[in-house]
Amino acid sequence: MEYKKKVQQLIVDLKTNYLLSVSIDCVIFGFHAGQLKVLLLRWKETDDWCLPGGRILHEENMDEAAHRSLRERTGLHEIFLQQFHTFGDVLRYKNFSQQETLLKLGLPDDALHEFINRDVSVGYYALVEFAEVTPTPDFFTDECRWWDVDQIPLLLFDHNDMIVLALKTLRRQLTYQPIGYNLLPDKFTMPDLQQLYETILGQSLDRRNFQKRMLGYGILERLEERKTGGAHKAPYLYRFNKENYEKALADEILFVG
Amino acid sequence: MEYKKKVQQLIVDLKTNYLLSVSIDCVIFGFHAGQLKVLLLRWKETDDWCLPGGRILHEENMDEAAHRSLRERTGLHEIFLQQFHTFGDVLRYKNFSQQETLLKLGLPDDALHEFINRDVSVGYYALVEFAEVTPTPDFFTDECRWWDVDQIPLLLFDHNDMIVLALKTLRRQLTYQPIGYNLLPDKFTMPDLQQLYETILGQSLDRRNFQKRMLGYGILERLEERKTGGAHKAPYLYRFNKENYEKALADEILFVG
Repeated sequence: MEYKKKVQQLIVDLKTNYLLSVSIDCVIFGFHAGQLKVLLLRWKETDDWCLPGGRILHEENMDEAAHRSLRERTGLHEIFLQQFHTFGDVLRYKNFSQQETLLKLGLPDDALHEFINRDVSVGYYALVEFAEVTPTPDFFTDECRWWDVDQIPLLLFDHNDMIVLALKTLRRQLTYQPIGYNLLPDKFTMPDLQQLYETILGQSLDRRNFQKRMLGYGILERLEERKTGGAHKAPYLYRFNKENYEKALADEILFVG
Repeated sequence: MEYKKKVQQLIVDLKTNYLLSVSIDCVIFGFHAGQLKVLLLRWKETDDWCLPGGRILHEENMDEAAHRSLRERTGLHEIFLQQFHTFGDVLRYKNFSQQETLLKLGLPDDALHEFINRDVSVGYYALVEFAEVTPTPDFFTDECRWWDVDQIPLLLFDHNDMIVLALKTLRRQLTYQPIGYNLLPDKFTMPDLQQLYETILGQSLDRRNFQKRMLGYGILERLEERKTGGAHKAPYLYRFNKENYEKALADEILFVG
């Protein structure tokens, strides 16, 4: 009963303080050691998974709302979130046969309507080093964890479509912006960088071409150190030239995966 | 008075039949003979210009709403409209010192609020052959016409920002999708195609590199005809291989401007 009351308060809060008809969903990709994962939340008392998301306060910029939602629901701070697409089909709720989800939540019948009202949802994505994250469920969810991108279950709403398009956008981004800062350690090898690109692109790349192209962009500095500990000839260590990297981000120099 | 009544009816219609807090704005680029232009509307009785836009009906997909709005307000049909960004800052109305605009429209004071309410706006863009378009003003506007992209005045709301970002997105699109179908005549020369790319990119390209790259993509068929009428050696005519062109659109083969 305490719970039902809380839910009803949340609905009043929603109607009073937030923009109607617009929501936000976040596709958080996690990268670590050659694996690509997505952060999902499991609704309370169910086996239904969905993306973390939220709504926009009346006096709040949309980008700030995205950051706040993510912070509140997953504990993640200061992520580079990037808007990728807005989802506006009437049938966004096709996978919402799961009205039971809401019933299980203990919502009153008339409150159901509040949740399945038609929203336009703005999709954001980010790529983070997933070892650094502590996923945390929120009021509506029991669990928050990483899923391999190739093993995502059928999600609530149109969230599967969102992940597919976010991944496509992330891959496309590799063709005009550099990637790696904040994802690789401060010093890394060329194979480390290539593995990052290969993981995101989902395909292997030619080693020599990759190296030639990456060096051509002028964003890397080769250090006078080599990586130690390997059995074979130790590869050189590199680091990003921050200034050139920022410039490449802004100029959208053509990057080729 | 007739006019004021009509406006008040429109406001009731707006509140009843459309999604609140979400609007749509369209950046329509026109290309013709080496010029790039944008379609703008001038508000009734003012010198204030803005982009054509609209709102989403409760039972309407957002993409359909974009097409409908554009059709209603500009007479344009079946345009390839592409969503590029959603604008959600609270200060989107910074250039709205022009409340006089609305007063001049003869709106009652309390109706003003309806128009300057905070919306999140989804931006769409398209590129059309502007010689084929007949711009038509709507109920709120006196004039609809093309402006050169480098001579856009200070627009209402954040519409200048929208045009800047739409152009950036269009240029970026050239790096992963082909362009030209529906914009060039059925048969065209390599210089025609190069001019299209140069106009959009706003810079000149090396002739030999451009030709080599374009032919490399496999989307062009060289015809056994040459263009007639020129003083110099007549250039070959080309046409798009529709199947390969569609495939390149879908696959996002890497195109380089």
